[in-house]
Amino acid sequence: MPQRTDELRELVESYFAELAFTPELEPLEASMRDALGGKRVRPVLCLATGEAVGADVETLLPAAAAVELVHSFSLVHDDLPALDDDAERRGAPSVWAAHGEATAILAGDALLGEAVRLALTYPTPDVARELVLATQRMIGGQQLDLQGGIELERLHALKTGALFGASIMCGLWAAGVPPAEHRPWRAFAAEVGLLFQVVDDVLDGDGYAEAIGEDGARKLAGDVAARARAQLEEVDGETEVLRSIVDDLAVRTA
Amino acid sequence: MPQRTDELRELVESYFAELAFTPELEPLEASMRDALGGKRVRPVLCLATGEAVGADVETLLPAAAAVELVHSFSLVHDDLPALDDDAERRGAPSVWAAHGEATAILAGDALLGEAVRLALTYPTPDVARELVLATQRMIGGQQLDLQGGIELERLHALKTGALFGASIMCGLWAAGVPPAEHRPWRAFAAEVGLLFQVVDDVLDGDGYAEAIGEDGARKLAGDVAARARAQLEEVDGETEVLRSIVDDLAVRTA
Repeated sequence: MPQRTDELRELVESYFAELAFTPELEPLEASMRDALGGKRVRPVLCLATGEAVGADVETLLPAAAAVELVHSFSLVHDDLPALDDDAERRGAPSVWAAHGEATAILAGDALLGEAVRLALTYPTPDVARELVLATQRMIGGQQLDLQGGIELERLHALKTGALFGASIMCGLWAAGVPPAEHRPWRAFAAEVGLLFQVVDDVLDGDGYAEAIGEDGARKLAGDVAARARAQLEEVDGETEVLRSIVDDLAVRTA
Repeated sequence: MPQRTDELRELVESYFAELAFTPELEPLEASMRDALGGKRVRPVLCLATGEAVGADVETLLPAAAAVELVHSFSLVHDDLPALDDDAERRGAPSVWAAHGEATAILAGDALLGEAVRLALTYPTPDVARELVLATQRMIGGQQLDLQGGIELERLHALKTGALFGASIMCGLWAAGVPPAEHRPWRAFAAEVGLLFQVVDDVLDGDGYAEAIGEDGARKLAGDVAARARAQLEEVDGETEVLRSIVDDLAVRTA
């Protein structure tokens, strides 16, 4: 059902287009909006997970957007001259290149804050707790990456896997799935995060592609995708859309 | 009762000394710890507020620490070369000067994340919501300050007042005080934030001291302290310690 993933992506776009930030962030609005591009892989995963367990998509959108805002925050800060020094992002000037370093630092902070604000629109703190834990792991992973010398698998689990996991787990929490049913979902989430990263490395020619060769990395991606599909068999839900997302992630070319 | 404020400050210090960060932040531990110094004005206010309405101090400590962590986060990012370019903080190298810009950016992010994590240890999202709203206002204020041309009172309300207000309001939420009783507390919080900033400006010779002269600013501080004391009369609680904090803030010399 690739159509449904397209529909979910459109829902994310509409949600962001209509999303009002905290009013006092008005001076950062332009820089924050510039940071919000992307393929929406994480929020679509969040929505597809929540729908798989029967939740209404409207209920899930704040959680999905929150995950994407954390992703955006991390890119804005990672692109800074002191970190990756990337002046371009998605074929356009990165936030610091367009708006200056100071504004990029504050815009990143504000995106993280808005992520938490959206995660806190739920009656319980569960979505926000899951999201913040993943954020902290991601930040710790980024620092390990700066320091160097860290094992690739561990690094990716922190830098990429944690937030992918949160995409799925926040969808469950937002849908009200009790923790007793989370175990197979967490295992699925870990495989999806790894899958995304391995394919990313194949496309970029670094990471796993560098460590085990492009063919090795492609084979690894196939194995991980198979494990992800197997995990989906273990969960209680209508997982057809999620399966199509796994299939797409395994063969994506951008 | 200045003794009680000293005891509360000690409790905050012990809490931070024993506080375990998210384990994956271990590579940022040293830089985050370096950021944690300070006078503890905000957490003491939070504890004194919660105690004034009858809460146990142990219940209040995560909220108090959360507010202080947001303050620390903001200082770490504000000190960065792209913002205030301060290589010193409290007589020691600032976090970026000691640990490098990249680590300081990530340490600031992680401090904000830990703040939210602590605020999320409560059963309801109220403390976290209050804290995040104040954080967003503070960040917006910082951006307005960068851009310049903004009225002093508005700027201080955002940059300083919002988090002072949150110190008090998070104490109330952590103590379980229902929103119907918040109004006079919010008015008190606004005066305390202004009081702190006006005295700060007198001590630094800028802001209000520059705008209306040192004598004018001192007089303003006296007026604001009087209004704060008057507001305390309106709240329902044992406000002796809070009154002593107001008295101290009005005459502080550091």
